[in-house]
Amino acid sequence: MENWYAGRMATVHRSFIREILKVTEDPSIISFAGGLPNPDLFPVDAIREASDEVLRAAGKTALQYSTSEGLRPLREFISERYRLKKNLEVSPDDIMITTGSQQGLDLVSKVALDKGDGVIVERPGYLGAIQAFSLFEPDFKAVELEDDGPNIDQLEQFLKASNVKLYYAVPNFQNPSGRSYSFEKRKKVASLLRESKTVFLEDDPYGELRFLGEHLPSIYGLLEDRRVLFGSFSKIAAPGFRLGWIVADEALRDKLIIPKQAADLHTSTFAQHVLYRYLMANDIDDHVDHINRQYRRQRDLMVSMIEKHFPGEVSFTRPEGGMFLWVTLPEGFSSMALFDLAVKRKVAFVPGVPFYVDGSGDNTLRLNFSNSDENKIPEGIIRLGKCLDEFLHSS
Amino acid sequence: MENWYAGRMATVHRSFIREILKVTEDPSIISFAGGLPNPDLFPVDAIREASDEVLRAAGKTALQYSTSEGLRPLREFISERYRLKKNLEVSPDDIMITTGSQQGLDLVSKVALDKGDGVIVERPGYLGAIQAFSLFEPDFKAVELEDDGPNIDQLEQFLKASNVKLYYAVPNFQNPSGRSYSFEKRKKVASLLRESKTVFLEDDPYGELRFLGEHLPSIYGLLEDRRVLFGSFSKIAAPGFRLGWIVADEALRDKLIIPKQAADLHTSTFAQHVLYRYLMANDIDDHVDHINRQYRRQRDLMVSMIEKHFPGEVSFTRPEGGMFLWVTLPEGFSSMALFDLAVKRKVAFVPGVPFYVDGSGDNTLRLNFSNSDENKIPEGIIRLGKCLDEFLHSS
Repeated sequence: MENWYAGRMATVHRSFIREILKVTEDPSIISFAGGLPNPDLFPVDAIREASDEVLRAAGKTALQYSTSEGLRPLREFISERYRLKKNLEVSPDDIMITTGSQQGLDLVSKVALDKGDGVIVERPGYLGAIQAFSLFEPDFKAVELEDDGPNIDQLEQFLKASNVKLYYAVPNFQNPSGRSYSFEKRKKVASLLRESKTVFLEDDPYGELRFLGEHLPSIYGLLEDRRVLFGSFSKIAAPGFRLGWIVADEALRDKLIIPKQAADLHTSTFAQHVLYRYLMANDIDDHVDHINRQYRRQRDLMVSMIEKHFPGEVSFTRPEGGMFLWVTLPEGFSSMALFDLAVKRKVAFVPGVPFYVDGSGDNTLRLNFSNSDENKIPEGIIRLGKCLDEFLHSS
Repeated sequence: MENWYAGRMATVHRSFIREILKVTEDPSIISFAGGLPNPDLFPVDAIREASDEVLRAAGKTALQYSTSEGLRPLREFISERYRLKKNLEVSPDDIMITTGSQQGLDLVSKVALDKGDGVIVERPGYLGAIQAFSLFEPDFKAVELEDDGPNIDQLEQFLKASNVKLYYAVPNFQNPSGRSYSFEKRKKVASLLRESKTVFLEDDPYGELRFLGEHLPSIYGLLEDRRVLFGSFSKIAAPGFRLGWIVADEALRDKLIIPKQAADLHTSTFAQHVLYRYLMANDIDDHVDHINRQYRRQRDLMVSMIEKHFPGEVSFTRPEGGMFLWVTLPEGFSSMALFDLAVKRKVAFVPGVPFYVDGSGDNTLRLNFSNSDENKIPEGIIRLGKCLDEFLHSS
């Protein structure tokens, strides 16, 4: 069976992070490696009630095949929430439910990318997006992600390249860096995009997880066309449903429906009905506030422990929301080598290299704070601080 | 936004069937057009209990991210069922859970197909597979599907073509034709495949829905390698879960996991846990017997009504299982034209053309019997018989 694979398979690889997570399954390891929400915050009982009610009231419908676009009332809920929370006018017609927002990346790639087409990604960038694009053999352009957003000069250069079809960005509490685009940079990005023919893909899985500072307007809302917005219920409800969505105008939806039907006919009817019932019967704003209070405690604790226990030459981000901190070692030190040492000392993180399409970033690493509570963060950061001290100061 | 689409989008279209289903949503129309299971047979109460128990006992796990390969105990259940029901040895390691078996077609296409690669499909063939392959711009070879399986001479010719990578088949109660491969043809197909380098894709969503005759061995089981088997819970439990699977050897799974991660990270944890709990707490064999008794009644009723009410020059299949009958009009008559007439007379079916990659088949049509009960079948067939009589005998 060796020689029958398509050309695209020569350049893609299994998710390095998913492989790392297997190493860290040892329960004695304190892992900051995963990108998981805190399951203690899942509204399990409310979802159980929602599931019970759906199956009592509309079991046959909830278990049958359904439309490729997704459950209409759920799309209306999303539309209304954009209006209330982001002051964005998005018609329910423009929303397609996807099997996680990850699926949206695959569908847009299928619709847009011929081999060699240019795709701007952030440096570092979200690995799931890099993987989805990679299967279509694009020409990646990695724009440096600074503390307040992309390097504007570099972005301007990339947008001038004739082959650049897509620019993919996570402007709020990006995975992996935890960085957000400032309002100034959002406006500059929108203005550059308006002059280009590039389609902007805005992924916003973490936008509601802001526990410091002010919500900032989406870049999607600053544009008039050539724009796609991805959303997800994974971080505000639960990821196990695999429920996300794409916002796209009519012309693009007409195209997206084709690979959607070919991919899975439609997203789980059962999951859509249960989640919708949960959203109707509960106050999702209260729930998001509850998540944000806990994540802020965990983030504050991780930041304060790092300040105390990491060597001074190690820098790190102090995100205002989301799930991740980004750590930078002095030049020349490898987080891959540190990883091996850390696992021996029973603490784990994700080395930065897989987030760079150009193979750089070896002196960076990602720490997740959402899935570790007060019982694990202090001890884990102390262990990692000791590793860093030994790693940077021995030899 | 018009000019930025990938080349592949020029040759693909929305599902014609899904468009037709919109026409037939009028409740006064008796529709034999859909491909839906009978929702009266969904085990709604048992699934409600399973969902309740899962969320009580393991809610956090059932709502969290999980592995791309799928829930291990569910894969063990499938493996054991292959051993008991089909005498097939399939390791749980070789099973990957997919978001409906439809997703398996997309993943295998991504792994296998470069533009212009040959794919043998049946004539008529399953539309969802044709759509999944089409996005990768293959060279389709359509092998005539006879009453007892493919035309062997034609298949032999196709398998000799150097570019033919895949042969996709639905040997049991095929969609759309309801036809099955005889044991003789299964052995011939396997023998031809063994001499070729083509990979065999066996899709078996309907295999358990046999209510007449004997179960026949899978072609997968007659081969040693270059083989993939697709399965689904949609027809034996409920399609709203979107739960299917691929059986593939280690080398191929190692490739398939890459597009799987890029497509949706993993299939719904919640759906997998609920279905697994349902399977553990209930006798699925009893449930499948129950489905088959009802489907046999519906199939027998449809066949006997057609015998009485269709003009003699119209031929049709008498399937031993599955969900579909296939009707052939005399040469020169168009089922598309008949469809317009039928909708006016408040009865619907799917015209045959979309199931033919070469645009032929205009004198054929598909009737679904699984989603119409004793209240609808007689009246619907009488209406359609009148349309046929008028259509064939006027002018």
